[in-house]
Amino acid sequence: MRKRNLDTCFSPALYEPERHAGSIIVIIDILRATSAICTAFEHGASSIIPVATVPEARDFKERGYLVAAERDGYVLDFADFGNSPFNFTPDKVAGKTIVYSTTNGTGIIKLASSADKIVIGSFLNLGSLSQWISGQDKDVVLFCAGWKNRFNLEDSICAGAIAEKLMSTSLYSTICDSTMAALDLWSLAKDDLIGYIEKAAQRSRLRDKKLDECIGFCLTADYTQKIPVIKDGVLVSIEQ
Amino acid sequence: MRKRNLDTCFSPALYEPERHAGSIIVIIDILRATSAICTAFEHGASSIIPVATVPEARDFKERGYLVAAERDGYVLDFADFGNSPFNFTPDKVAGKTIVYSTTNGTGIIKLASSADKIVIGSFLNLGSLSQWISGQDKDVVLFCAGWKNRFNLEDSICAGAIAEKLMSTSLYSTICDSTMAALDLWSLAKDDLIGYIEKAAQRSRLRDKKLDECIGFCLTADYTQKIPVIKDGVLVSIEQ
Repeated sequence: MRKRNLDTCFSPALYEPERHAGSIIVIIDILRATSAICTAFEHGASSIIPVATVPEARDFKERGYLVAAERDGYVLDFADFGNSPFNFTPDKVAGKTIVYSTTNGTGIIKLASSADKIVIGSFLNLGSLSQWISGQDKDVVLFCAGWKNRFNLEDSICAGAIAEKLMSTSLYSTICDSTMAALDLWSLAKDDLIGYIEKAAQRSRLRDKKLDECIGFCLTADYTQKIPVIKDGVLVSIEQ
Repeated sequence: MRKRNLDTCFSPALYEPERHAGSIIVIIDILRATSAICTAFEHGASSIIPVATVPEARDFKERGYLVAAERDGYVLDFADFGNSPFNFTPDKVAGKTIVYSTTNGTGIIKLASSADKIVIGSFLNLGSLSQWISGQDKDVVLFCAGWKNRFNLEDSICAGAIAEKLMSTSLYSTICDSTMAALDLWSLAKDDLIGYIEKAAQRSRLRDKKLDECIGFCLTADYTQKIPVIKDGVLVSIEQ
């Protein structure tokens, strides 16, 4: 049996769309977008519409949608909430469609449009996501969102955690140095995630803006079984 | 006293020329370009002219220069040698100017042209290079050449080794996640470099082409005190 390829991409600037056509792309942006999205579905959201621009988000708000919209950590004045997973409580989101404004995220979704499937990964859905991926006979790319196209530690260790799960199935092989590095960084981080993440630049940025209260939560494995997946440009949830 | 910034860039695709204007850029491409360049200077080469294209290299050959030129690991028919450091023996290179054909390298040199200085790094000149850099009151970027714009392990651990030396001086600070990752990968690799490099895709590529005899040498620290530096588009050597 052919082993499936497991690749890791450390930044949107390193993504190779032709090379990864037909793969499952796992978008990882754990502080805080993909953690917030997983939380929203766990708390009953029915779908999430990603939009690129502030005017689009405002337009949806005027049409009565719930809108999550932030720029550089600050909630936009017309929005219902920002990017913290703690905002997406069951009383606010259950049964609702949420519009999520994210410049970075919509860019990545567009970049990955040649993929077989685009799914959302975080520590919060680590186990169910890995199990679901193993059930699909496809190559996989762990796509770290990074920060302003730069490599970041938090998404890399999450990629390493997913890679460890997938490699343990013996269904995958990798000749990708990024995957090797993600596995190695994860091996150093896993016994003390909170301590390790102190090294990350995003840790300091969130602390400076007093937006760091959710970091421990974002590093929690298996809070949810939900697997957010893009269908016709909209995020919906499948469950393992 | 202001601490100097220490940044690491894992691929030419991640380099930010405006951000790094005025920094010292250390180009790292240890399997095998920057190791070969350091070896050539140790063995007495007087200068190395980097050229981008095969026709340029051929033209220099016709004018009587020594030419090192390879594509995908294969020596071009008109060239005197390929990229293995073992080719650059004293009897061949002492006192000579060598023309070095490298698509990747010349692209990187162009990209880094806003830098204060561009120097060549490898394990072979680790100690003298780090000491020389510490003597310059400049920010530093460890620029990993990668492979076809991808992250690679071998250049990353060499960046980690240089970063460790620089950080130990207390002259530098870093809020760069790539530097943190390079330091961490180096911490895992340093006790068994030959074993660690088995994970690297380039290790397999060189083995497949029977070009791997020099890998142990390329992982040897402090074979030379020479520090190759770009002056007016040509590589010359300064000595610590």
